[in-house]
Amino acid sequence: KKAHKIAVIAGDGIGIEVVPEGLRALEAAARRFDIELEFEHFEFGSCDYYLEHGKMLPDDWFEILSGFDAIFYGAVGWPDKVPDHISLWGSLLQFRRHFDQYINLRPCRLMPGIKSPLADREPGDIDFYVVRENTEGEYSSIGGKIFEGTERETVMQETVMTRTGVDRVLKYAFELAQSRPRRKLTSATKSNGISITMPYWDERVKAMAKGYPDVSVDQFHIDILTANFVLHPDWFDVVVASNLFGDILSDLGPACTGTIGVAPSANINPEGEFPSLFEPVHGSAPDIAGKGIANPIGQIWCGAMMLEHLGFKEAGDAMVSAIEKVLASDDKSALTPDLKGKGTTQSLGEKIAAAI
Amino acid sequence: KKAHKIAVIAGDGIGIEVVPEGLRALEAAARRFDIELEFEHFEFGSCDYYLEHGKMLPDDWFEILSGFDAIFYGAVGWPDKVPDHISLWGSLLQFRRHFDQYINLRPCRLMPGIKSPLADREPGDIDFYVVRENTEGEYSSIGGKIFEGTERETVMQETVMTRTGVDRVLKYAFELAQSRPRRKLTSATKSNGISITMPYWDERVKAMAKGYPDVSVDQFHIDILTANFVLHPDWFDVVVASNLFGDILSDLGPACTGTIGVAPSANINPEGEFPSLFEPVHGSAPDIAGKGIANPIGQIWCGAMMLEHLGFKEAGDAMVSAIEKVLASDDKSALTPDLKGKGTTQSLGEKIAAAI
Ligand SMILES: CC(C)[C@H](C(=O)O)[C@@H](O)C(=O)O
Ligand SMILES: CC(C)[C@H](C(=O)O)[C@@H](O)C(=O)O
Repeated sequence: KKAHKIAVIAGDGIGIEVVPEGLRALEAAARRFDIELEFEHFEFGSCDYYLEHGKMLPDDWFEILSGFDAIFYGAVGWPDKVPDHISLWGSLLQFRRHFDQYINLRPCRLMPGIKSPLADREPGDIDFYVVRENTEGEYSSIGGKIFEGTERETVMQETVMTRTGVDRVLKYAFELAQSRPRRKLTSATKSNGISITMPYWDERVKAMAKGYPDVSVDQFHIDILTANFVLHPDWFDVVVASNLFGDILSDLGPACTGTIGVAPSANINPEGEFPSLFEPVHGSAPDIAGKGIANPIGQIWCGAMMLEHLGFKEAGDAMVSAIEKVLASDDKSALTPDLKGKGTTQSLGEKIAAAI
Repeated sequence: KKAHKIAVIAGDGIGIEVVPEGLRALEAAARRFDIELEFEHFEFGSCDYYLEHGKMLPDDWFEILSGFDAIFYGAVGWPDKVPDHISLWGSLLQFRRHFDQYINLRPCRLMPGIKSPLADREPGDIDFYVVRENTEGEYSSIGGKIFEGTERETVMQETVMTRTGVDRVLKYAFELAQSRPRRKLTSATKSNGISITMPYWDERVKAMAKGYPDVSVDQFHIDILTANFVLHPDWFDVVVASNLFGDILSDLGPACTGTIGVAPSANINPEGEFPSLFEPVHGSAPDIAGKGIANPIGQIWCGAMMLEHLGFKEAGDAMVSAIEKVLASDDKSALTPDLKGKGTTQSLGEKIAAAI
């Protein structure tokens, strides 16, 4: 039995509080499914590390982390200590780029006991994934400014899509769709307005679709697609999108299900050549940090995605079921205040671990 | 008393059915407020025109339309007859560019009698404008493809922002915010990911804000901003955004209020050097075209925005009030089927005209 090595970076703010509960749940799942997990903790990748060392990561971070099977991240960012563009580009975005985590995967799902902002929707009605391209597209840093400081000042920035980059995210999304009962893929486009890169994206979707005749494919322009997330979230199964569109949809999707505070996010290198990274969507939440009341479900759900990525789908599913069971139960005493409970990060974490 | 010359283009599909009701309402408002409107009808700008002439517009469209004070458009597009990129780029997008309609303005507002997809929201809770930059930004057509047909295939497209282009839309948005009771402006950005153009946008917002100390300004990254449209639509008063972000937000906003089928959209040249264009968001709706059941409210609301643009704010407000009065009334008999009524395009149009 091979031990799976997990690098744990608690990071900033509530990351420090929810990570222990994520680990508690992972240990419970590991015991039940007889999985060997080995955790190693790191201080870097946090704003406090930056304040001490003048950088977010040590120079040899790539060598240090390369040997791990996955990175289990809490949250990074604390604008009062370090500006976001330094803390985020100095950590998370380095990992995405250098570990070629070209997939960003986020589930959008109505959970029992969590209020959705949408009217008349029940758990089961909404259950889809957003698959986001995570390395190129609109996030290229190519461009610049001309005529600086004058009335003619002009800035330009390039969107770059490569066949390799587009095809591999589409392949991942088609395969994910194929593995699900509805076998449905929706592509986000804007080829009626963004007239060069987006028609190319559509072209590659068409070409790729030929290899997956059992997957039904549709596409929407991003404007009406965001509208349909609100109006018809039940239409979606797997939604695939460029870096920017995926960024938008993977915040909007969890917002529609009311789960933005508990949603997980996976930055995946599907080939496993480099470690993948799992972090909750919620961020470091300076306003409630240090109070012991942060909801640990996002971090625990990240653990579930991590186990699934490592090949333990059953264990991952069991963790999600445990979350849902605790949320659905009538006894709200262990729940955190955001769930209208009187409990703490730890009491909710313990309850979920026990349910696993 | 000066006559205001309006070019009327019914266009395609339900445009042909709703435009007469828009005109009926405009005529009622003109009578009540003693405004002189002169309508001239045009066949071009429709797919049928294209099928007959091989182009969407006559060669001298610019000269023909330049003499008008406004363009009152129904809808354009009928994909079974003409592909969208031909019909839209051949009409609407020509007008936007050549008549320098650099503002796209859309109200997002809960209306009585219209079901919102959001839970627990009442008319009055949501009432804001999206101000979209309408000529540059992500919609530049600059870019291309290299290594075509090979594995190395790469496409690039430039986003272009100019100081002139950014400043003038910001100025419009700040002034709009200033004219409203809450005096609040929200800027859509993504400077944490789109690292060249979006920081520039933020910089110009900061510079412009100095001239409007009475307007309170905040900003959100586009991902969390779309989430907040769903979670906290009551936060917003005036939202200003680049071409692409504005496109997204101005579909998402009306979706959140359930008004995507009745929302108006104004393409404005604020200086009045060229005619501005008013068209409903709903499009030509081939599925219900020809049945006489299309909801004319979007077109009528466009008329209200047009009158306001021409300097008749009171008349525009009266038209919107008439719409709301008819929607709020217990007698649903004249309403169209989408509003759970048994009426027709005409019966609803007549009812609103009578209320004006
Ligand atoms: C048709 C399309 C190019 C257009 C746009 O994106 O500008 C439309 O979505 C709109 O908002 O008017
Ligand atoms: C912090 C930011 C650059 C990042 C992104 O846009 O990728 C974040 O929004 C995310 O989705 O992880």
